[in-house]
Amino acid sequence: MSLSFHSNKESLYLQVYDHYKNLIMEHRLPAGSRMPSLRKCAAELKLSRTTIENAYLQLAADGYIIARAQSGYYVTDIAAQDPVSPVSRHSNLPPVKYDFASNGVDHKSFRFDLWQRYLKSALRQSERLLSYGEPQGEADLRQVLADYIRQRRNVNCSADDIVIGAGMQSLLNILCPLIRGKKTVSFPNASFVQGSTIFADYGFDVRYRNKDSDVIYVSPAHMTKWGEIMPVSRRMELVHHASENGSLIIEDDYENEFVYFQRPTPSLFNLAGGHGVVYIGSFSRLLLPSIRLSFMVLPPSLSRQYAAVAERYSQTASKVEQIALCQFIRDGHLTSQTKKLKKLYAQKLKELKNVVQNIFGENCTIQTGAAGTSLALTVPYTRTGLELKKEARMNGLSILILEESADTITLLLSCSSIATDEFEPACRLLKSNLI
Amino acid sequence: MSLSFHSNKESLYLQVYDHYKNLIMEHRLPAGSRMPSLRKCAAELKLSRTTIENAYLQLAADGYIIARAQSGYYVTDIAAQDPVSPVSRHSNLPPVKYDFASNGVDHKSFRFDLWQRYLKSALRQSERLLSYGEPQGEADLRQVLADYIRQRRNVNCSADDIVIGAGMQSLLNILCPLIRGKKTVSFPNASFVQGSTIFADYGFDVRYRNKDSDVIYVSPAHMTKWGEIMPVSRRMELVHHASENGSLIIEDDYENEFVYFQRPTPSLFNLAGGHGVVYIGSFSRLLLPSIRLSFMVLPPSLSRQYAAVAERYSQTASKVEQIALCQFIRDGHLTSQTKKLKKLYAQKLKELKNVVQNIFGENCTIQTGAAGTSLALTVPYTRTGLELKKEARMNGLSILILEESADTITLLLSCSSIATDEFEPACRLLKSNLI
Repeated sequence: MSLSFHSNKESLYLQVYDHYKNLIMEHRLPAGSRMPSLRKCAAELKLSRTTIENAYLQLAADGYIIARAQSGYYVTDIAAQDPVSPVSRHSNLPPVKYDFASNGVDHKSFRFDLWQRYLKSALRQSERLLSYGEPQGEADLRQVLADYIRQRRNVNCSADDIVIGAGMQSLLNILCPLIRGKKTVSFPNASFVQGSTIFADYGFDVRYRNKDSDVIYVSPAHMTKWGEIMPVSRRMELVHHASENGSLIIEDDYENEFVYFQRPTPSLFNLAGGHGVVYIGSFSRLLLPSIRLSFMVLPPSLSRQYAAVAERYSQTASKVEQIALCQFIRDGHLTSQTKKLKKLYAQKLKELKNVVQNIFGENCTIQTGAAGTSLALTVPYTRTGLELKKEARMNGLSILILEESADTITLLLSCSSIATDEFEPACRLLKSNLI
Repeated sequence: MSLSFHSNKESLYLQVYDHYKNLIMEHRLPAGSRMPSLRKCAAELKLSRTTIENAYLQLAADGYIIARAQSGYYVTDIAAQDPVSPVSRHSNLPPVKYDFASNGVDHKSFRFDLWQRYLKSALRQSERLLSYGEPQGEADLRQVLADYIRQRRNVNCSADDIVIGAGMQSLLNILCPLIRGKKTVSFPNASFVQGSTIFADYGFDVRYRNKDSDVIYVSPAHMTKWGEIMPVSRRMELVHHASENGSLIIEDDYENEFVYFQRPTPSLFNLAGGHGVVYIGSFSRLLLPSIRLSFMVLPPSLSRQYAAVAERYSQTASKVEQIALCQFIRDGHLTSQTKKLKKLYAQKLKELKNVVQNIFGENCTIQTGAAGTSLALTVPYTRTGLELKKEARMNGLSILILEESADTITLLLSCSSIATDEFEPACRLLKSNLI
């Protein structure tokens, strides 16, 4: 193979990724063809197996290839899809009737009238809206957030250590330049493309499940897509190992609010005594996904470094939404919304499990964790996942495929965007597509 | 001097910058002391004069040192200021009565009731708000923006080539990784820290007024702070030179709406036929600075590259504000708001010039351009600019110092945030501080 991969800023696995992506998109590796085995590919390209594996995991995460257990990786038909904007691409598809793939919030759970009232009241602060916001985020919201996470998550910090941004990526765009001495970052798996992309953009070498990386990114309440959480013993281990190694932990506290079947586990930030851990929180699963508002808590050393450059980064989050959220939390609505959603999702997930069990019977395997809004369903199936996904979509079903083998398929079913009384028709429709 | 500067990812000038910043903040270079001359410093550190100059310009832009014409650079008293958050830092100061330093909008020009109506109507689209927004920005807003800039700025593009983001920095965070083959970027001067910071974060070598850089960042309608605009002949030259060199132009169309005394000049994007130019627009000077909404138009080659990675970057701008702005523009309010502000600022700037002329008399020099909301005022003054700034602030005046010499000082006076009938008391108060 006449290829040369350079060990420059762009990490090797991304070069391998790009190489195969191009072959796939140019139809030189046609849909359905089997990818070379990791060993064979590593030998051919004179690269390590880990590098090839990372590239394959990324290709799979981005939909170019798909893993089939005990068989290897296969090219999907992504290249046959029209490469224009998402809107026009899907324009001839019927509307989605049942969305099992959603990571939105329950349609009926959000009180738009309430949020609208807070936005209206924020808009009345006209003098305040005539100027740019504080680069770090509005001071009153930061204070409210500091109080909130102290009470709810035992995260002790000052409002000065909190940085607000329009989503987790905006925060990483501030954090990555602060920690530019570090070179490697580890993620639990390849599925969190939004996170790994930003680190790769700043020249970090992205790895998976590598405890000795300079930066370790974890979501302890969301270890698997079906809601497994990291036990306290492993949290302690991780904190100790990182502290000995001098690694920085980034704790993305995603979905910690939806831990149902046990007490919420302590945050890594708390276990580490506030040192060596950046804590990230967001509200997309609690309020509206369309409200772009996340925050990070910096440990003292990074907080000082940030203060020196803070004025160089403009705030990205909407000031109106910051002011509204501040008062919304002060008035206790975030706490009650969290309580309501937690109860609702626990019930819905239990009910969904019952319905799935009834409809799919003995032949299915259901995996659930202690948290989250989804379960994993494995059923017998002999065609490809891609065929299933397309057929289901044509019938108004949106589904997410986790894994497939020669005779089974594993789907992730989210309960958040389907009403409880629609679980049964939704699952029956799904079953009819699986025959 | 026992220093070593490494030519690594972090550009040399930033290392020099950090070196002096630390000396200043640790009081080892006390306030008022003169910085070594460029030549002397370059010789001592064995670096080029340009590198030292870039470092000094950045130090000046960030307030660590200040230039005095024909004399050199002097350390400010920045280290004496309390390094905590902006709020607590200024908490013992009186409120600002007259803000000459503002880049906000005129207090009375913005119709909050109107904007509130559009936000309310956007909030009614509840189904749409329950999901994440399109990574590239809402499709209907992109279409409206494409139509708007075609009509107003003769920028011809498709909605597919437009990327929306929460401010210019969010857009650069997407653009910089797309153009990672390029190594150097040129800015017109050191004052636009928000722009140069992002490029430096991605390892670009930041230069000033360097036509041969790989990337050339310009704001043609805002060449100086007092509103000088780039003439068409220079625009043509720049486009030709960049095209021959293979440089990418980033055209930040900041304040193009406020070109008063001549017809608006054609955009570089238009002059270049849509190739080799990224066009950036924003609404902070037209609507509210607190609305974080900017957009960029990518030329065809970059647009294709972006499409391949679009799904990896989450949208940063508020979906509610995107929906509201879309309808606001459709209903013609952006056009009428622009017209109204243009007329208002032209009148205010003329009136401010008259008032300044009357109050400061023959001893002053006033510089104005063909655009913008500010004028530059040079008056006799023998103390330091820092003293003036502090004294003025204690008297409720916020001012911006552009330059100082042994016996004169140049201030930038913005008309946007002071009411016309307050120009006279504001200027009298300013004059009393200058004596």
